[in-house]
Amino acid sequence: MAYVLQARRLGIDTYQQPVAYLRRDGAVCKAEGFEAQSRVELQCGTRVVAATLNVVDGALLNGQEVGLSEAAWEALGADGAAAVTVRHAAPLASFAAVRGKIHGRPLDDAAAQAIVADIAGGRYPDIHLASFITACSGNRLDLAETIALTGAMAAVGQRMQWPSPVVVDKHCVGGLPGNRTTLLVVPIVAACGMTMPKTSSRAITSPAGTADTMETLAPVAIGIDGMRRVVEREGGCIVWGGSVTLSPADDVLIRVERPLELDSDGLLVSSVLSKKLAAGASHVLIDIPVGRTAKVRSEQAAQALAARLEAAGRALGLAVRCVVSDGSQPVGVGIGPALEAMDVLAVLQNAASAPQDLRQRALVLAAAVLELGGRAAPGAGLALATQVLDSGTAWAKFQAICAAQGGLREPPRAPCTHVLEARHSGRVVAVDNRKLATLAKLAGAPHAAAAGVRFFAPLGSRLEVGQPVLTVHADSPGELAYALEYAAAQSNLVTVEDV
Amino acid sequence: MAYVLQARRLGIDTYQQPVAYLRRDGAVCKAEGFEAQSRVELQCGTRVVAATLNVVDGALLNGQEVGLSEAAWEALGADGAAAVTVRHAAPLASFAAVRGKIHGRPLDDAAAQAIVADIAGGRYPDIHLASFITACSGNRLDLAETIALTGAMAAVGQRMQWPSPVVVDKHCVGGLPGNRTTLLVVPIVAACGMTMPKTSSRAITSPAGTADTMETLAPVAIGIDGMRRVVEREGGCIVWGGSVTLSPADDVLIRVERPLELDSDGLLVSSVLSKKLAAGASHVLIDIPVGRTAKVRSEQAAQALAARLEAAGRALGLAVRCVVSDGSQPVGVGIGPALEAMDVLAVLQNAASAPQDLRQRALVLAAAVLELGGRAAPGAGLALATQVLDSGTAWAKFQAICAAQGGLREPPRAPCTHVLEARHSGRVVAVDNRKLATLAKLAGAPHAAAAGVRFFAPLGSRLEVGQPVLTVHADSPGELAYALEYAAAQSNLVTVEDV
Repeated sequence: MAYVLQARRLGIDTYQQPVAYLRRDGAVCKAEGFEAQSRVELQCGTRVVAATLNVVDGALLNGQEVGLSEAAWEALGADGAAAVTVRHAAPLASFAAVRGKIHGRPLDDAAAQAIVADIAGGRYPDIHLASFITACSGNRLDLAETIALTGAMAAVGQRMQWPSPVVVDKHCVGGLPGNRTTLLVVPIVAACGMTMPKTSSRAITSPAGTADTMETLAPVAIGIDGMRRVVEREGGCIVWGGSVTLSPADDVLIRVERPLELDSDGLLVSSVLSKKLAAGASHVLIDIPVGRTAKVRSEQAAQALAARLEAAGRALGLAVRCVVSDGSQPVGVGIGPALEAMDVLAVLQNAASAPQDLRQRALVLAAAVLELGGRAAPGAGLALATQVLDSGTAWAKFQAICAAQGGLREPPRAPCTHVLEARHSGRVVAVDNRKLATLAKLAGAPHAAAAGVRFFAPLGSRLEVGQPVLTVHADSPGELAYALEYAAAQSNLVTVEDV
Repeated sequence: MAYVLQARRLGIDTYQQPVAYLRRDGAVCKAEGFEAQSRVELQCGTRVVAATLNVVDGALLNGQEVGLSEAAWEALGADGAAAVTVRHAAPLASFAAVRGKIHGRPLDDAAAQAIVADIAGGRYPDIHLASFITACSGNRLDLAETIALTGAMAAVGQRMQWPSPVVVDKHCVGGLPGNRTTLLVVPIVAACGMTMPKTSSRAITSPAGTADTMETLAPVAIGIDGMRRVVEREGGCIVWGGSVTLSPADDVLIRVERPLELDSDGLLVSSVLSKKLAAGASHVLIDIPVGRTAKVRSEQAAQALAARLEAAGRALGLAVRCVVSDGSQPVGVGIGPALEAMDVLAVLQNAASAPQDLRQRALVLAAAVLELGGRAAPGAGLALATQVLDSGTAWAKFQAICAAQGGLREPPRAPCTHVLEARHSGRVVAVDNRKLATLAKLAGAPHAAAAGVRFFAPLGSRLEVGQPVLTVHADSPGELAYALEYAAAQSNLVTVEDV
């Protein structure tokens, strides 16, 4: 049966999980046998949302009200006077296919489509999402399953179309702090007249995603119409994928992958390629940094991932090319949204302080994109990219893109900073990307945009005792202390050797 | 940093997940960078609980308060005036071993112990529990891992000791609605002078667990001291495992396994044997019903599970014997806590209406327990068990056990019932246990103790059109309608064939 209740916004932020609150002694709970953790369907006008129930005793609600978490309130588009219909949620039939996968039955197209439709529709509770993600992690998806999942993810949500027959895109597999090449490649390539509608994610397990970094410079949550406008005007954009409902299931999955810190080749391929397909790309360049503490740790793993990406792309009508790059240490100086943005600005502006490693990586990737998309002849991409960057044309294009997205702005600066000094002297022979990333996250990145680390001790550099190794930046003394406590407990953020 | 705040009981039941609520604009969130889904540690006096944070805007709380869900409130033993200290939770270090397992690294003793300690300590958020369960499901645990997990689970929490050198126990792998033999085996065996400290679980994915059924006849949440007293007085008991902190990690896992409807050999073995070890058993009989729609579907799967149980038992000092039984249809007539209890009472009282299949299964199992524990010579168990049941000695012992547990009571009866009649005539050739179980659950079982199904069409029986096949029992018209809607959509709860 269905019950019409008065919506009550409780102002509770449950991290995007829609939660409904009902009184235990109210008519609805009693008539329907609802209990905590029951799944209910909420309807307000034409909007329908699946929610998890929390049962309330006491004065928080009366029996004619249904309390809504912020996510439920927003998804329903409810307002103060809204009536919301509450009923049992339909059983989650597609989870049988997840159970089948866990017991060894491969995911076929039908199973992938059913699962992805339910995930994108918000019908998977968080524990079911966690189970699906785990079932697909650790190389548990083969190529056919990866293709099925990717195709299903690209097919839900919108799919963009562009006038140009060649639409390029790029992606970096990540795991390398500060590797913010997208903010350089897009303006270079767009300045060469190509179409590059780039959507980027926020951080999953890292201290900054490209969208987090770009957001310190310009608005990124501009929606699909905003994205279309910017690309039509400037040829390129850098927007947050979560605002454009391209492969919306991916955003739901990432929300749970992030606290679990789980990822895998199959999920990575489906996440990356479904976004590119939905954004209308025809040619995609993928950067795979390899290093002992990068996301991909060996050349062999990189080749396997590249083969998977290229094969899945081929099956789905996407020309994919992978380049394997050096992932032995962070790129640039900054780690964290605003600190990475400052590195990008220095490169675009050809400042003397610009990190040369970031510049060089961006030029190599831009060259590869120009060649992959046919804008430069094989071997001629690097000269073209360098000329566009050195001449200031890329910087002008970047400013134009920011203006089109809503206006270029100054990245924020953190009020609390602390310098960590070298305790030994010698040459730097190893840098732990993961520990530096953890340190930046403990300092507050990415939710605190100004937080993070500035790192001054690249591989091969010579340190003297007392010389700054890094600076920790935080919005609050509490976060600074939390990060420094972690740093003090680590013996090998950086390994030095006598020379 | 740590902050002392005023505890505020919000009366929100989050299904046993401790949740803390803090104002977004309060000093603590701002100083510590807390956001929704952050993990915090709460302390009240000497009690410490890990909780997930929900962030609140608006009037629900003031900035000097921390709101507590019911689970958090109870775990902290807080009262109206309590001060609660809030700080960042320590990183969940043991989850790295779960990630390792997902990526193919076997669980060793150290990993299992670290994971189980964190789970039992309430430090795993629900999505991490779901991930761990999924990583262990579908035959992903080998024997060595199963032994490591079982040993770790038995080692946290209490471990009971008994004067008798022989302490027997039994367990049924389940999946067979109405198979409530424990309530018969315990009084028979205890009446023969053996020690049988039986703990049972509530339903995981079924319409009734043994503890749910027993609870309709006597209190089962009597704690470990109550359990010890009952067994010392009567030789046996049937108590809810959740009230006695034997293998407490198991209860936490079951809470998440239940909505996921996931189980596996490895988790099953560790769940069953860790409870038996902690309860101080020396000899355990395990009933494995096999049927196309039972939990175990083939003789082969049953043999594999039996081998796993016996080998893990051997490694951990427990004599385990498995018997494979017929799982082709429900046992007895009732499905659901109270309806199953009525079947048990009929057998104990030697009523003319007593379901003979339930009686016979219980006698066979009791005989095996008597022989396994050395109370009857091989081959002599059945005669002894039958004599104890027929003479009323078992019924007297059951009443004494119920009295010792807090008093025998009458099972509740459901106010709403509906008869489903045969739509075809013929002989019953197949019964779908799973669909009957789902029907009973949709009617409200097990949380509504009186709800469920009475089933009148066993295999081989002859049905005429219009003859009752089953009755659905529910506490409310809403649940009755919900169950009947499901029943109407099923074509083959029961399959009949012309004769």
